Amino acid sequence: MHHPLLNLIKNKKLFTQVFKNFGSPTYAYSKKQLIRNVSAINKALKANFKKFQICYTIKANSNPHIIKTLKSEIPHLGADCSSPGEIYAAGLGGIRPNDCIFTGNYESNEDLDYAYRKNVHINLDDINSFHRLKKIGIPTEISFRLNPGFGKGAFSQVVTGGKNSKFGVPKHKIIDAYKLAKENGVKEFGIQCMTGSGVLDPNYFPKLMEEIIKNIDAIMKSVDIKFNHVSMGGGFGIPYDDNQTPLNFDKVFKGVSDTFHSFFKNKDIPELWIEPGKSVVGNTGVLLASVTGIKKSYKNFVGLDAGMETLMRPALYNAFHRVYKIGDLEAPYSEIVDFTGRICENTDRLAVERPFPSIQEGDLIAIMDAGAYGFSMSHQFCTRPKAAEILIDGEKLQLIRKRETIEDIFSKCEIH
Amino acid sequence: MHHPLLNLIKNKKLFTQVFKNFGSPTYAYSKKQLIRNVSAINKALKANFKKFQICYTIKANSNPHIIKTLKSEIPHLGADCSSPGEIYAAGLGGIRPNDCIFTGNYESNEDLDYAYRKNVHINLDDINSFHRLKKIGIPTEISFRLNPGFGKGAFSQVVTGGKNSKFGVPKHKIIDAYKLAKENGVKEFGIQCMTGSGVLDPNYFPKLMEEIIKNIDAIMKSVDIKFNHVSMGGGFGIPYDDNQTPLNFDKVFKGVSDTFHSFFKNKDIPELWIEPGKSVVGNTGVLLASVTGIKKSYKNFVGLDAGMETLMRPALYNAFHRVYKIGDLEAPYSEIVDFTGRICENTDRLAVERPFPSIQEGDLIAIMDAGAYGFSMSHQFCTRPKAAEILIDGEKLQLIRKRETIEDIFSKCEIH
Repeated sequence: MHHPLLNLIKNKKLFTQVFKNFGSPTYAYSKKQLIRNVSAINKALKANFKKFQICYTIKANSNPHIIKTLKSEIPHLGADCSSPGEIYAAGLGGIRPNDCIFTGNYESNEDLDYAYRKNVHINLDDINSFHRLKKIGIPTEISFRLNPGFGKGAFSQVVTGGKNSKFGVPKHKIIDAYKLAKENGVKEFGIQCMTGSGVLDPNYFPKLMEEIIKNIDAIMKSVDIKFNHVSMGGGFGIPYDDNQTPLNFDKVFKGVSDTFHSFFKNKDIPELWIEPGKSVVGNTGVLLASVTGIKKSYKNFVGLDAGMETLMRPALYNAFHRVYKIGDLEAPYSEIVDFTGRICENTDRLAVERPFPSIQEGDLIAIMDAGAYGFSMSHQFCTRPKAAEILIDGEKLQLIRKRETIEDIFSKCEIH
Repeated sequence: MHHPLLNLIKNKKLFTQVFKNFGSPTYAYSKKQLIRNVSAINKALKANFKKFQICYTIKANSNPHIIKTLKSEIPHLGADCSSPGEIYAAGLGGIRPNDCIFTGNYESNEDLDYAYRKNVHINLDDINSFHRLKKIGIPTEISFRLNPGFGKGAFSQVVTGGKNSKFGVPKHKIIDAYKLAKENGVKEFGIQCMTGSGVLDPNYFPKLMEEIIKNIDAIMKSVDIKFNHVSMGGGFGIPYDDNQTPLNFDKVFKGVSDTFHSFFKNKDIPELWIEPGKSVVGNTGVLLASVTGIKKSYKNFVGLDAGMETLMRPALYNAFHRVYKIGDLEAPYSEIVDFTGRICENTDRLAVERPFPSIQEGDLIAIMDAGAYGFSMSHQFCTRPKAAEILIDGEKLQLIRKRETIEDIFSKCEIH
């Protein structure tokens, strides 16, 4: 299936303007696609659940203007935050603390203190975290993150459930966790479970809900509590190549709803929470780069002014991203090339052995699906300043993060 | 062999002071070890070469105060720079532009322009780079980076010579490169070759010099030029575990010298340049972290306030770093643990399945050999601010980079 932004990147005039106004490399996001994605998820949830909450995963893309744009479409949008910084970002984007869920993982006492004082929903990753939180204060409501003993993800690195996972409370301790919280005066409860990222199999999510329900059932039978909300986390994948099929959210949430409602039919029905990141922002972002040099060495290389410092996913996970020459998508392939950046490390590839049309210095390149875990994982290795970020709204180009300067990189340094 | 900073990290009082004054996590560098490393390299070179230059590799650690400290020991210290930002960092550390070598790799025209205007030595990665430089200006002197068709490195990602390498001019084009430069009015020449990082085999370097010499011979036979300098790059490894043997620099440079001087004996002898990074700063830096949480899940986890965002090497290369409990190095092992950070990704491990003494929340941990490619590859994933950096000079603790704040991370954002 073709990429939803294919028409956009045919517009060479628009992107020439982007390069002229904002320089290169630049992360460009489509406002239309942002709205389209979050609305589709919202609609599918609405069709299947009376009470639900979308907690947008800040770590996927923490640009405050992006968050604000999503919230302008879904007024009750919540946020999934993993650090004080992400709670802060959610706030900059206009999301209320009470709509944020903070899921720590070996979080420090300062992290817990920040979350407690901000009055966000606290989702604990471990029983020990409860002991630490208790010294700060006991919130009215708490949830625990369940590690069901299995997980699924696009890469081994992003599988977050299972025996090797550092996340969550293992199944055999989950009842004790709720017992402890209740004994210590917690009045209201949630449960959360997030087992991996980038899942494209719609049947996985009902299966996961089945497992969550089994645990809820066991907890409710042992501890006299009700659940206010059940968060099944995120992990909703997106296609990174034309052969992959996008998730059908209607199917996903219909399946989840069947399992969920058949269990809760004679009980108080909790809110369903989800924590989507990639499925909201992933395909909305394009990393724009310029060709700096073409090299015919033992292999053919296309050098770009963006590299592993700009987009880490290929170097870190060997992730695949589609690459196009802006304005010229239909030209026939003329060679096989590696796309690389300027970093002094051979890992620095954005794409490997790709058939590509004829290309030359100065050409504009779009690396697709860079909206999630793109800028948010970028760094300044080799003292390369971070890219600019812009929002494309029809013909309107809006700068939403200024390009970093070399001086910025050294702004905290002290030379004695 | 034991780590040279083992005595230092026995000093619990000192590190408790570090945590108290500067917080956690913090990169701490030993001034003594910095001086020791750079002096040892300098001495070994002096014993074998009349004219030589150490170009410290800025990308390993670009903290200007670190650079200044090295330069205070070696007044003629040069710098190996891969970007305008690194030339700028070298300048902050007091290194003169004429002592800097700029080695681009698919560098942009702006990069070349910056290097040309700053009057640093320009080392070109490709013939096409020469064509681009020509439009800016022809410097008096130029060198090319040779890809000899082979390479060696501690991880596949850091092998920078060979058929899959994006670096350098391939052997079969190197003569043409110098021909072109000469025809275009370049008067003086150097050559550079850097084939990989983290090499601990002392015999590799003379072998590499042999290959460089073969190419020099071929170039000199075809093009009527002399070489002012020959840079064999860096790649000098350091032990990351007790079973590895440190490089014997006397042996390395004796071997290199034999090959070098037997070729140049009846000719004008060029300067030997080397570009060490890791071997200068690697073992001088310790990443200090605190234990935030201990989890007994399907595995045992020790959670730290430092993770893959603070030190990328384990997640990126599966690199091994020694981990110690500060002040308590001799306690018997009591369990097998994974060290992890607070990042929402399962890759977030600093060490995996390590036998370790009994440990609890609040304990102070040292992750060794974090001086090179530690801070310089760090990022802010999950909106975690970057660590502070300090220099330890005996009992004196000097802040050399302030801890980043959450607000800093968003300082370039524009919310409309």
